[in-house]
Amino acid sequence: MVNQVQTVDDTWRRCSKSDSSGASNSGGESSKESSRSSTPVLDTDRTDRLRDKMRRRTESGDHWFSLEFFPPRTASGAVNLISRFDRMGSGGPLFIDVTWHPAGDPGSDKETSSMMIASTAVNYCGLESVLHLTCCNQTKEKITGYLSKAKRLGLKNIMALRGDPIGTDWEEEEGGFNYATDLVKHIRCEFDDYFDICVAGYPTGHPEAQSYDEDLKHLKEKVDAGADFIITQLFFRADTFLKFVRDCRAIGITCPILPGIFPIQGYQSLRQLVKLSKLEVPEEIMRVIEPIKENDAAIRNYGIEHAVGMCRMLLESGEVPGLHFYTLNREVATMEVLRQLGLWIEDPRRPLPWAVSAHPKRKVEDVRPIFWASRPKSYIYRTQDWDDFPNGRWGNSSSPAFGELNDYYLFYLKSKSSKDALLKMWGEELTSEKSVYEVFTSYIMAEPNQAGHKVMCLPWNDEPLAPETNLLKDELAKVNRRGVLTINSQPSINGKPSSDSIVGWGPPGGYVFQKAYLEFFTSSENVTALLQVLKKYEPRVNYHIVNVQGQNTTNAHDMQPNAVTWGIFPGREIVQPTVVDPVSFMYWKDEAFALWIEQWAKLYEDESPSRMIIKYIHDNYFLVNLVDNDFPLDNCLWQVIDDMFELLNMHYFIEEME
Amino acid sequence: MVNQVQTVDDTWRRCSKSDSSGASNSGGESSKESSRSSTPVLDTDRTDRLRDKMRRRTESGDHWFSLEFFPPRTASGAVNLISRFDRMGSGGPLFIDVTWHPAGDPGSDKETSSMMIASTAVNYCGLESVLHLTCCNQTKEKITGYLSKAKRLGLKNIMALRGDPIGTDWEEEEGGFNYATDLVKHIRCEFDDYFDICVAGYPTGHPEAQSYDEDLKHLKEKVDAGADFIITQLFFRADTFLKFVRDCRAIGITCPILPGIFPIQGYQSLRQLVKLSKLEVPEEIMRVIEPIKENDAAIRNYGIEHAVGMCRMLLESGEVPGLHFYTLNREVATMEVLRQLGLWIEDPRRPLPWAVSAHPKRKVEDVRPIFWASRPKSYIYRTQDWDDFPNGRWGNSSSPAFGELNDYYLFYLKSKSSKDALLKMWGEELTSEKSVYEVFTSYIMAEPNQAGHKVMCLPWNDEPLAPETNLLKDELAKVNRRGVLTINSQPSINGKPSSDSIVGWGPPGGYVFQKAYLEFFTSSENVTALLQVLKKYEPRVNYHIVNVQGQNTTNAHDMQPNAVTWGIFPGREIVQPTVVDPVSFMYWKDEAFALWIEQWAKLYEDESPSRMIIKYIHDNYFLVNLVDNDFPLDNCLWQVIDDMFELLNMHYFIEEME
Repeated sequence: MVNQVQTVDDTWRRCSKSDSSGASNSGGESSKESSRSSTPVLDTDRTDRLRDKMRRRTESGDHWFSLEFFPPRTASGAVNLISRFDRMGSGGPLFIDVTWHPAGDPGSDKETSSMMIASTAVNYCGLESVLHLTCCNQTKEKITGYLSKAKRLGLKNIMALRGDPIGTDWEEEEGGFNYATDLVKHIRCEFDDYFDICVAGYPTGHPEAQSYDEDLKHLKEKVDAGADFIITQLFFRADTFLKFVRDCRAIGITCPILPGIFPIQGYQSLRQLVKLSKLEVPEEIMRVIEPIKENDAAIRNYGIEHAVGMCRMLLESGEVPGLHFYTLNREVATMEVLRQLGLWIEDPRRPLPWAVSAHPKRKVEDVRPIFWASRPKSYIYRTQDWDDFPNGRWGNSSSPAFGELNDYYLFYLKSKSSKDALLKMWGEELTSEKSVYEVFTSYIMAEPNQAGHKVMCLPWNDEPLAPETNLLKDELAKVNRRGVLTINSQPSINGKPSSDSIVGWGPPGGYVFQKAYLEFFTSSENVTALLQVLKKYEPRVNYHIVNVQGQNTTNAHDMQPNAVTWGIFPGREIVQPTVVDPVSFMYWKDEAFALWIEQWAKLYEDESPSRMIIKYIHDNYFLVNLVDNDFPLDNCLWQVIDDMFELLNMHYFIEEME
Repeated sequence: MVNQVQTVDDTWRRCSKSDSSGASNSGGESSKESSRSSTPVLDTDRTDRLRDKMRRRTESGDHWFSLEFFPPRTASGAVNLISRFDRMGSGGPLFIDVTWHPAGDPGSDKETSSMMIASTAVNYCGLESVLHLTCCNQTKEKITGYLSKAKRLGLKNIMALRGDPIGTDWEEEEGGFNYATDLVKHIRCEFDDYFDICVAGYPTGHPEAQSYDEDLKHLKEKVDAGADFIITQLFFRADTFLKFVRDCRAIGITCPILPGIFPIQGYQSLRQLVKLSKLEVPEEIMRVIEPIKENDAAIRNYGIEHAVGMCRMLLESGEVPGLHFYTLNREVATMEVLRQLGLWIEDPRRPLPWAVSAHPKRKVEDVRPIFWASRPKSYIYRTQDWDDFPNGRWGNSSSPAFGELNDYYLFYLKSKSSKDALLKMWGEELTSEKSVYEVFTSYIMAEPNQAGHKVMCLPWNDEPLAPETNLLKDELAKVNRRGVLTINSQPSINGKPSSDSIVGWGPPGGYVFQKAYLEFFTSSENVTALLQVLKKYEPRVNYHIVNVQGQNTTNAHDMQPNAVTWGIFPGREIVQPTVVDPVSFMYWKDEAFALWIEQWAKLYEDESPSRMIIKYIHDNYFLVNLVDNDFPLDNCLWQVIDDMFELLNMHYFIEEME
């Protein structure tokens, strides 16, 4: 739920003078936190900590789900996992968690480390994330170091685990961490209440515990030491979990207990997991699986059916506020279970038109320049050192400016496509500027290029066209074909409901608006004609035109930003999440031009004709953005481009006459 | 001109990296000045100093006018003069000036002092104001004290004059101020460039000067000492002024020279002024006036005709960027001259929907609670100690809260009507709550009450209904008749052009929006039914309901403000100048209830039935505000009130049945 209107019962709520000043204090504090005190808190979910979100959803009976992932083994695995976070994040998990792999240098800055994966999920994918941490065979200093680093990276939640001892026999270590309880205590002692802490529960008892009751007692100790909620080990029968919850409650454990759901996905993975967790697979499951053990699809289908049935029982019991899924870094089975349960939110309501970062420092961020619309991770990366969002309207000298540009090499910003695939899409050999135009056109139309390959991405857009942009497809294709190489656009919108499935965002009952926007590269010849044409469209159309050297022409008023997306909601101030800002455009310009070289030209040999063509465009074309301020009227930007071409045609005609 | 879009010529404006960071610096600085960094500067006029405004309008050939007033003799004269400022301010003067009356304790806090009148014009009437200051027979300390006080009160402009010496013979004083030049130097020395300084010019030479040329030399000295512009003594022939300007330019005076225009308004005032200024009235004027000297109307008409003719010549000369009028604190003649010249802007474009204060500290103010819409001077008074507008969203504990409530006694907030007139309008004797309802209804309908007197104002509204509110007249009258005593309302507006003559505001080419708003007092019985009805309108309608004790019911989300007026403009961020704010509503509540007693009940004898009736309403009624969030649909607030009455009728019916 994005929005919960606070309802008032019939009894008078006393709000005398002192009450009202109390309320005003909190207003003042929240406004101090934000650089823009006009920011309405559109979504309390954004600002609440995980345990508060759980409490609110438990109270409202709004079931949730969460997803567990493990860190990838390879760099390209990391790129894929980040894409998976984006896709699975769109289904609306309450949180994800990332396991701790002691063998994989889990606290390092490697792209495959648990720490970096969890940090990327929070900062770049906007997912509330829980980082696992195991403590056995670790010094306190090491653990404190990990926790400090996690805090610095914006992580707010820790799953505190003992971890597997080295060697087979378990020995207590003097002064070290011997149990997860020690870790929970250590976190609370060193970091007070900063982290939300999760601990593991074992519905059939920990394999090393002396008894089930003994294990329950340990769990109670972990909770008493400061844990906020429990996630259980996997199990195969709903009853197992429900009995466990009853037993927990009986000894005074009151925090949320989330069942760990493991949809069976294959014979091998089941065997492996069962071996690791020392669980026994019930007879009735083995009976089904054994006969089909060579048929992966059949096992998966059975696993989905079994998980759905068990989850239904759990949810219906009233004891389970949310479900936790062991995904094994796979998508299909878990998504299918969630879909069947009705928990997968196909079209999750967006609190803002762009994906909000989950970093606690950025939670108040409520406006971004439109330029990075298709490269939000790059924007987050380049503004990661800011304290304010935006930073003094994108350029206060007292704050750091936009960060370095060489973000092409960061794993969470890397293209999902290989060099080979990119060459197929963008052309093994370019023969003219025209062949570049065709690549753009194929991308827009989602049609195969001349070599028969679908163009799925461009350097400025790693994803196929957004549904919203699809509305403009035909117009876009028409102009791209003629060398107006569009990289960003939005249609005008005059008050659509905030619940609109394509353009809606924000709480229900509101209205969203947009000014039409078009951003493209084009030749200097075209720009000369365009500037002539734009005189007719004053002050209706705002423009910025710049080349790679920074030659800049604009009719922006006093370098002020132009709001191009805004929303009006019941009982709120106006929200304007997207602007065209003249100052940040100059930073974007550097990035947009560099992408020609870094992502496209470098695919080809030095001095090769293909490379020279891209380099020519990079050196000579202009980056143009246009805003049609008259949002209630029909978008005039296509007319502007038409007029430009008409003027150019006239020139040719005249030249030919001469 | 409210808005000047910065146009760009065809040559490339270079804006390399260093340029863009330069721009970003200034952006950062301006955002620091404002508590709301989202504030777009809608009107550079608001932030510029007087000499810059003059320069810009001179450059654009946009002629202006300014108005001179003298301080009133009596307290009621002060009340009237403030009303005149409001009326004449609506014609769009570039500035007004207030003369310095050494005999009237000009620097004191008396309501008739030059200082207080000029301060009121700036702070409460939103007029750019120039305070005269004479220096002869004054110590430097005294003068510095006056200037410091003026600065503290928000005055930014001084007309530096020598003043008339005491006694008939003029003697130089050792170390004192002997000439206006000394005062100009003193201001620049003590206050650097803080003030804009005006000095007087004498088109026919100062009466005490040795010669015309000698006088010009003195004028040059004053300008060289730091004066920014010149206003001339009155004259009767355009040629006199134009020769004077030529002579000034010839000796190197380059600053603006504004002609002082004196429309002849009567025989006596002309004689008096001529005597004081030692001017001679030209033969051709005396020939016209002498025969009609007993006929004031005829003289005034001649004066208007003469002034218009002379002003036309001046403006057409190209030497005159603006005209300065000696109004003698009268309206008719000057307004008529300005109308005929086309300089009186009948419907001046409003930069915001409310009148902006001209205090330099408040120039960035861009949002106010709607509650004070009809009492803007009270809002300004009660927030005069704030450093930020709004003050931490109307209630930061680190800033002062709303100022004292007893503003009823301040001359610039006093009703223009006498106690006697108020009694006639609001009833010499009230017999029931019903008779109060009738007063409200008569006010809304602009019709005479039962005693035959038109109700021109209410304690909450010192002016007749605003044109915008007039749109709602019939609905308002209907509900007032039944005890829904409305004190503030606005219709919903879904994107009218910003140039709309009734609801428009802000720069041209924009669109303005409103949510429907209704604020009223009503009985607790009505409120009980209303709350029942409002359940049907969740979350479409936001409400706050409070009684004098502060019993408060609301469905406001997290005590957040609700934007009820906003505008979308070319190349700007969204502007939202009016909000319904839950925190400030509690302060407004105190004021709104107190007005029943202070302005109405106190008209009647203690313990009189009339007084008891008003007191009963004050003690028992609730103050209600309603916002219809669904601005694109038909306003549902009338339906809400209808539903409330219907529910009440049902109750009566049921009671009667029983």
